Amino acid sequence: MTAAPPINIAVLGASGYTGADLVRLAVRHPRITIKALAAKTHAGKRVEEVFAHLGGLGLPDLVEVVDIDYSAVDAVFCGLPHGAANSVIGKLPESVKVIDISADFRLDDAAVYAKWYGLEHAAPHLLAESAYGLTEHNGAAIACARLVACPGCYPTAALLALLPLVKAGTMSSEDIIIDAKSGVSGAGRALKQNTLFCEAGEGLSPYSIAKHRHMPEIEQELSKAAGRPVLINFTPHLVPMSRGELVTCYVRLSDGGTVDGLRSAISEAYQGSPFVRLLDPGANPSTQHVRGSNMCLINVFEDRIPGRAIVIAAIDNLVKGSSGQALQNFNLMFDLPETLGLEQVALFP
Amino acid sequence: MTAAPPINIAVLGASGYTGADLVRLAVRHPRITIKALAAKTHAGKRVEEVFAHLGGLGLPDLVEVVDIDYSAVDAVFCGLPHGAANSVIGKLPESVKVIDISADFRLDDAAVYAKWYGLEHAAPHLLAESAYGLTEHNGAAIACARLVACPGCYPTAALLALLPLVKAGTMSSEDIIIDAKSGVSGAGRALKQNTLFCEAGEGLSPYSIAKHRHMPEIEQELSKAAGRPVLINFTPHLVPMSRGELVTCYVRLSDGGTVDGLRSAISEAYQGSPFVRLLDPGANPSTQHVRGSNMCLINVFEDRIPGRAIVIAAIDNLVKGSSGQALQNFNLMFDLPETLGLEQVALFP
Amino acid sequence: MTAAPPINIAVLGASGYTGADLVRLAVRHPRITIKALAAKTHAGKRVEEVFAHLGGLGLPDLVEVVDIDYSAVDAVFCGLPHGAANSVIGKLPESVKVIDISADFRLDDAAVYAKWYGLEHAAPHLLAESAYGLTEHNGAAIACARLVACPGCYPTAALLALLPLVKAGTMSSEDIIIDAKSGVSGAGRALKQNTLFCEAGEGLSPYSIAKHRHMPEIEQELSKAAGRPVLINFTPHLVPMSRGELVTCYVRLSDGGTVDGLRSAISEAYQGSPFVRLLDPGANPSTQHVRGSNMCLINVFEDRIPGRAIVIAAIDNLVKGSSGQALQNFNLMFDLPETLGLEQVALFP
Amino acid sequence: MTAAPPINIAVLGASGYTGADLVRLAVRHPRITIKALAAKTHAGKRVEEVFAHLGGLGLPDLVEVVDIDYSAVDAVFCGLPHGAANSVIGKLPESVKVIDISADFRLDDAAVYAKWYGLEHAAPHLLAESAYGLTEHNGAAIACARLVACPGCYPTAALLALLPLVKAGTMSSEDIIIDAKSGVSGAGRALKQNTLFCEAGEGLSPYSIAKHRHMPEIEQELSKAAGRPVLINFTPHLVPMSRGELVTCYVRLSDGGTVDGLRSAISEAYQGSPFVRLLDPGANPSTQHVRGSNMCLINVFEDRIPGRAIVIAAIDNLVKGSSGQALQNFNLMFDLPETLGLEQVALFP
Repeated sequence: MTAAPPINIAVLGASGYTGADLVRLAVRHPRITIKALAAKTHAGKRVEEVFAHLGGLGLPDLVEVVDIDYSAVDAVFCGLPHGAANSVIGKLPESVKVIDISADFRLDDAAVYAKWYGLEHAAPHLLAESAYGLTEHNGAAIACARLVACPGCYPTAALLALLPLVKAGTMSSEDIIIDAKSGVSGAGRALKQNTLFCEAGEGLSPYSIAKHRHMPEIEQELSKAAGRPVLINFTPHLVPMSRGELVTCYVRLSDGGTVDGLRSAISEAYQGSPFVRLLDPGANPSTQHVRGSNMCLINVFEDRIPGRAIVIAAIDNLVKGSSGQALQNFNLMFDLPETLGLEQVALFP
Repeated sequence: MTAAPPINIAVLGASGYTGADLVRLAVRHPRITIKALAAKTHAGKRVEEVFAHLGGLGLPDLVEVVDIDYSAVDAVFCGLPHGAANSVIGKLPESVKVIDISADFRLDDAAVYAKWYGLEHAAPHLLAESAYGLTEHNGAAIACARLVACPGCYPTAALLALLPLVKAGTMSSEDIIIDAKSGVSGAGRALKQNTLFCEAGEGLSPYSIAKHRHMPEIEQELSKAAGRPVLINFTPHLVPMSRGELVTCYVRLSDGGTVDGLRSAISEAYQGSPFVRLLDPGANPSTQHVRGSNMCLINVFEDRIPGRAIVIAAIDNLVKGSSGQALQNFNLMFDLPETLGLEQVALFP
Repeated sequence: MTAAPPINIAVLGASGYTGADLVRLAVRHPRITIKALAAKTHAGKRVEEVFAHLGGLGLPDLVEVVDIDYSAVDAVFCGLPHGAANSVIGKLPESVKVIDISADFRLDDAAVYAKWYGLEHAAPHLLAESAYGLTEHNGAAIACARLVACPGCYPTAALLALLPLVKAGTMSSEDIIIDAKSGVSGAGRALKQNTLFCEAGEGLSPYSIAKHRHMPEIEQELSKAAGRPVLINFTPHLVPMSRGELVTCYVRLSDGGTVDGLRSAISEAYQGSPFVRLLDPGANPSTQHVRGSNMCLINVFEDRIPGRAIVIAAIDNLVKGSSGQALQNFNLMFDLPETLGLEQVALFP
Repeated sequence: MTAAPPINIAVLGASGYTGADLVRLAVRHPRITIKALAAKTHAGKRVEEVFAHLGGLGLPDLVEVVDIDYSAVDAVFCGLPHGAANSVIGKLPESVKVIDISADFRLDDAAVYAKWYGLEHAAPHLLAESAYGLTEHNGAAIACARLVACPGCYPTAALLALLPLVKAGTMSSEDIIIDAKSGVSGAGRALKQNTLFCEAGEGLSPYSIAKHRHMPEIEQELSKAAGRPVLINFTPHLVPMSRGELVTCYVRLSDGGTVDGLRSAISEAYQGSPFVRLLDPGANPSTQHVRGSNMCLINVFEDRIPGRAIVIAAIDNLVKGSSGQALQNFNLMFDLPETLGLEQVALFP
């Protein structure tokens, strides 16, 4: 019996929180060898100078993106900022599979991208071939893609909750309201006043109301599922916790629709999906219970207003909302068991 | 010139968070003398054994409710649990003005009370005379009432945001969705597993979906303003912070209504109200900026879905949502300046 | 090639935080099968009713301790409260290996136990055979023991920092001062006022000064290493975080001793220990960087006062300070690789 | 009867946390009129653009330090960074009293300043006339000073705890160990990675071990009291809370000294001091109980090691440790009641 050969990966943008979380998981993945870690401003440093929790793991030192020998790399995880990612990915050799955690290949239309991100897309020719990496809903395409665009954290939670319902026709695609709440790590490790401990702690703030960049992405996928253009209300809030994301979705039932119907649609959609759990009726999905894990918890509640329902999903924004889902996609792309390297149980408390 | 005589008060339920916050404010109120503090299980103790931050202030020891000499008391603040409050208040002498922070006199109809609280009301004869203590909207009635029923914390925030709009007719009273978020102190000081640091910390949970007891109170007041029965969606979430409450209200504009129209209605409603501020367009109301103060911050945002808007209000649940508003009502009842003893600027960070 | 057979375990006290953390790790341990979970008040419930983060893992329902069939069990992890643990363990069949996470077998002397815990020991005959489970310092004894008494969380951190220094004679055993800081999970899941979110949050408190029960345990082990009775100052503080423990030890160097000498002693002691890392000179050990992992980070700092030094160790109190170390001991007792099931990298942020 | 005339103040460095906390208190001080607020990078902005919690208070817009008309100002509170403060203060007109919250005038010796701050002092001629602003120990000098150098937050807590003991000779001035813990606001509002929510949250870190700039200041004052040079161990830790500071001091009793003797010395020292409270024996000083207030809580504990004791003090680092003490000094300098504008009870929870 011969052991399967390692799959060599490079992580671009390893000095951000999503990059670090990818490394945390990948270093324990039984088939992965981390060949290179790249990070712009920190190139030349040892990993533990940048992330003390990653010390002592035998990881390679940080290098510049351009200094990686891609001929020795099977797959690249890209956690670069948007704008930088598409430019780098556009120049990678064809032999390398790419799991992009940035926002650059999520929107199908370069014009929509330009409008929301204020940038011309640097590799529009790749948009058509990139697969949207919402694993549970796009697994077949992901498995044979060379480039997978992992969804944003909010779209992951919102679409896992709503896509099955729109597809099944059990809810209306009008007037969808998504009240979203995220931990502070969603804002990244860049220095910003509003993510200082003293600013974000012990308080709650709405932000980017009606203009968050995850909105067009949610609308794009809901529109495809609905077969018609869908506009949504998406209102995010910053919560004093490091990890965790919860979307509370207020929806209208289709004519004759029921909460039980919504439950059935979700239950059927995620039959066999190891990382999505529909909770027992009445149980509240809480971000505490997915911290550090790749799980998504969902539940559906009857609204007091007749004909309406509440659908709630909770994820860890850095895992299922980012690096965990990226690794899940990697598993599919390399024909590995979907859960490989992602079995960690949530850390509670 | 003679100094005005002190107004003697008793605080019932002084061992809870709202009771303690009332004491914190009242002990510095220039006209108040705290004559008695009552707390069931802690009777006989010194205040600082129960609340260390209230030590050294020369406060009276805690006694039983029945051991207070009400003939020496001008006003009673009642922070007892619901069910206990109406029974005690029903027996107080007529000479004593009562500011009730409990839920017992908020609902006009004893049958509605019985349904939501699972208890027969012990003093239904007082329901008619009690004034609903939402100061900014009911000041005249409060000023001449003997018994004021202070609103719940959620109703305070929600009604301050929505009542002017319903009254002005600028929003529809259909399909009102209130996504509410509260700090943990809202659950009180009783020992419950879900309010332990390790359970509530570093995470976010929805709770009491479509069955929270503050819902009928909000509906009652909106219905009165709308002149028709209003059903709402009210979905609360527990946020890892001690103080603070934010309501994100999703509403539909009336025909021809605009966000500017909503702003005008709010602006006019709170002309001259020292504790409600409509923020500049685009500014996000955050609970951090009202912590420890009696302020309510409000703003209105355009929705991406045409014909809809988002109205957000932030308060400190223990101050404007409870003890601060109680003191504000006290000021009106005793013909004192509305802001007396409530001038504290928010504590940030 | 035949797969190694599973080792069947039971977890007693599965409804506490340490029990739950043991389950979190054990359920992913490649050689463990969890046969039974016992919890007094929650017997009869499904695991996810008690710990939502452990739902969907196919775990057995909770039962009473007495209802476990120990003939089908190879090892018992005991997370019962002190006093309950020794009574239960005293009656377990000889065939079962026991890893005790409680305090009941940590002290060698039943009289000392009685003095500090206020209880007669229920199984004093087992004290002599029990091995003190500080893995890095007692591995040989642990490997062949039937009963291992895992250290308290504070003793784990303090002894990992100080034992090598006392053994090497590089520090004095006089006037050892241990200023200790713990996250709130150290206090367990029982309902106590001081561990409510609103009480423990946004503040820091010392507690149990000069009378904490972990003190005699630290003194016992330091005394054995020093060959003379050692008295220590041990002053714990409660920190507003769920997990994490840091001990800041103020020590006097032996005559001619140096900080480099201390570093060498620590470095040599943990040569080949996968879970203890001496940091680079000047690097600060932080609990953030061990959260959820079995690592202990140590560093030594020069004191401004000549002849003194500061030794600091950081662990996750629930992992290396409790369940992780228990599993590490289990691995030794069953002749498995020491790191099996414990490879998780710390969860940061 | 004529009302006392207002005292006109300017606040320099109003965009930092200490500046903002000074404004929070000063705006409600019955004798103060805030004439000018200065802040380098934010000059030209409205206050609420910089600190939303200070909106609606009728405060003047932010200006440059040089644009203030000091002829209209009676007192300046200076919260500028060290290095900037001494340069600005050196040029202020003689007519203006100065309460400096920066570090620039705390050290008596310009050479010591240069060594610890890496800067030549820009106004060494003012060092001799400046009074060290530890109100309870230097009130007479403060009352007649033109320039008061308010202590650092750590020195405030440490000296309030230890000065009476050194002065009374009840403790040794050898081997003083101060284990200090601070909330994150102590690091200011500047953007630093280690004060991001995700870095400082849910964890505890030591920092600046044996090299913190507050050390020479504590040593200077202890040396003066002891009449001999005193070296201390000072080890600070960053705690995941916004406000609060606790020093745990490990000291040796003088020959024949007792814990009761320490208590007496502290009790006598603060007879009549409204802002320092010696707690009942056994009560733990906690930062929660001074949050937002100018109080310092102190207690003394017997050590398990004979001849030693533990002295603990808790303050709010931004109030008694900074802006509150500055205002307390202002009151003395203007012959006002010491407590004026500082009566706020701690905000708990």
